[in-house]
Amino acid sequence: MTTPDPLKPGSVIGILGGGQLGRMLAEAASSLGFRCHVFCPEADSPAFDVASARTLADYEDEAALHRFAAQVDVVTTEFENVPALTAEVLARLKPVRPGPKALAVAQDRLVEKSFIHNLGIAVADFTSVDRIGELAAQSAAIGYPQIIKTRRLGYDGKGQVRIARAADADAAYEAIGRAPAIIEGHVTFSREVSVVIARGVDGETRAFDIAENEHRDGILSVSHVPARIAHATAREAVAAAARIADALGYVGVLAVEFFVVGEGDAEALIVNEIAPRVHNSGHWTQDGALTSQFEQHIRAITGWPLGATTRLAPEAEMINLIGDDVREWREIASDPVAKLHLYGKREARDGRKMGHVNRLIGLTRG
Amino acid sequence: MTTPDPLKPGSVIGILGGGQLGRMLAEAASSLGFRCHVFCPEADSPAFDVASARTLADYEDEAALHRFAAQVDVVTTEFENVPALTAEVLARLKPVRPGPKALAVAQDRLVEKSFIHNLGIAVADFTSVDRIGELAAQSAAIGYPQIIKTRRLGYDGKGQVRIARAADADAAYEAIGRAPAIIEGHVTFSREVSVVIARGVDGETRAFDIAENEHRDGILSVSHVPARIAHATAREAVAAAARIADALGYVGVLAVEFFVVGEGDAEALIVNEIAPRVHNSGHWTQDGALTSQFEQHIRAITGWPLGATTRLAPEAEMINLIGDDVREWREIASDPVAKLHLYGKREARDGRKMGHVNRLIGLTRG
Repeated sequence: MTTPDPLKPGSVIGILGGGQLGRMLAEAASSLGFRCHVFCPEADSPAFDVASARTLADYEDEAALHRFAAQVDVVTTEFENVPALTAEVLARLKPVRPGPKALAVAQDRLVEKSFIHNLGIAVADFTSVDRIGELAAQSAAIGYPQIIKTRRLGYDGKGQVRIARAADADAAYEAIGRAPAIIEGHVTFSREVSVVIARGVDGETRAFDIAENEHRDGILSVSHVPARIAHATAREAVAAAARIADALGYVGVLAVEFFVVGEGDAEALIVNEIAPRVHNSGHWTQDGALTSQFEQHIRAITGWPLGATTRLAPEAEMINLIGDDVREWREIASDPVAKLHLYGKREARDGRKMGHVNRLIGLTRG
Repeated sequence: MTTPDPLKPGSVIGILGGGQLGRMLAEAASSLGFRCHVFCPEADSPAFDVASARTLADYEDEAALHRFAAQVDVVTTEFENVPALTAEVLARLKPVRPGPKALAVAQDRLVEKSFIHNLGIAVADFTSVDRIGELAAQSAAIGYPQIIKTRRLGYDGKGQVRIARAADADAAYEAIGRAPAIIEGHVTFSREVSVVIARGVDGETRAFDIAENEHRDGILSVSHVPARIAHATAREAVAAAARIADALGYVGVLAVEFFVVGEGDAEALIVNEIAPRVHNSGHWTQDGALTSQFEQHIRAITGWPLGATTRLAPEAEMINLIGDDVREWREIASDPVAKLHLYGKREARDGRKMGHVNRLIGLTRG
């Protein structure tokens, strides 16, 4: 395999999706001399504010996709649920990184779990439920408690319901709209960690230091680096993430979330899920690492060599500002060492990610 | 004096000028949740790529200035030579930070030198030349060698000519187009350093660590932090910069360039010039300080508290990529610890600033 030439500065990066991840990707791309063209169906999209060109259209508007592809040099995405049609149309016209295969795997929990399991990497026990008649048998096969999740379009705890015992299964299936689903066995874990790893066009991988994540109401609340896990566990997590990235022929930044189970010598990892994009648990890298995950993703998809992932302080912490949390912006702005990042969203709806705060901990200079 | 409320995230910052400084200001503003409206007369302006709104018009187009002012919450500038008319029109409509006074002082070398001298801060011997008949007497009064500089519109070594002896004066005056000028005495200096300082709406000042600067062909080539000067000299430089900022009622980031003269106990400072904006010698702060000069400027002009200027590594270095230097981008991109910043300019003309590279030196982690 020959590695294609890196894209020249001044090239145009097409970004599918106009949320905060697209906005922060565009900021990073600008810093390397690239321009961004953002494609998004919502007029009020944060990423439009820093894009040199905008397409306001539905993701499955083929004419708009063709016009978009004609104006960009590479296509990437800030969300995993890119419709298959969109990825296929674009992939015929321009490089799409990460590619349609990675997106397809990550947007179906059954395909994703099977893919990871088949690589010999541990996942929770799982089984699929595609018809109402299957439910009782499949549910019983996994054991209780368990979680039923829609195969597609779940994020931030949406589209999933806990099943404590057999009698709850019907109501839970009803609650997720009887959509095609998987049932996962409950995992008793001590902590949740994530690996944010980049894989270049040439197959090189570089991981950031592993983050330990706390969720609140199913939404990431805090990430802390480094995670409190054994060195051997950390090495294993990075190796698993690299194996997944390799198997997907992945190009760009990929996040792999793990449950940490057991203690001491019995500490082990179970993959929870993957996200084929920059990830909330990697936001600390904007201020805490020599290369941010956003720059790293831009480097990967443009065929540039990856940057150093060196951490800049003994510890780093990222706190999400969700919904009304963002009202504290004045107080946070008054803390001279808090690195405040806001997404420019007009309305602070409940559960909506409005911004985040990074803090470097243990810096001795100053 | 009461301090006005800080601008809320989502507010619109109007930036006069569309060059790389405007581009990097817009990147930083986006990260704090602001939007930017860039006003520039050249269609192919780097800052347009990351602006949420653009005005392509002449700086003295009053109708365009009125429309621009109606769409922004505060106005700032990335260059000092804003026409007086422009600043006055805008200042009647919206806060202009830094204000018209600071711009007026900084765009006339005679006014600037007099202003600083009158604050009791050392500058080179200087005298004005406004008519051809004055030249011989004024030139002789300063002594040789000396430099004749146009009062207005000089930058990067343009608009200035060295005069080695009396006989050269006429030709030198001719070379600068017989424009109103000043003659400055030659200063024998050991090094050039600069203070990049921010002053908030509330009058608080915070300086970054002092940079030592090397020029090549009159253009900044390398900045290195910290500068090799005595602690007392550094303190004196920061105090002088703060005194200038206070006297100007300045809001935003201000750069003050100094010559260092004498050695050891006789080490002393002479102000060379000031720049009422973010400054090339402060670019290292993007990767080397907790708050970048760009974020600091945005904080100051929006009435936010200033951020910490803590340096993140024992040393930091910034190297400009001028003209064809930018052809080395592939090599620089391959150095995982080089932080490459490119401005998205289409054409690498001679002497044109195309980008820069920051390096942190002496980081032990990794």
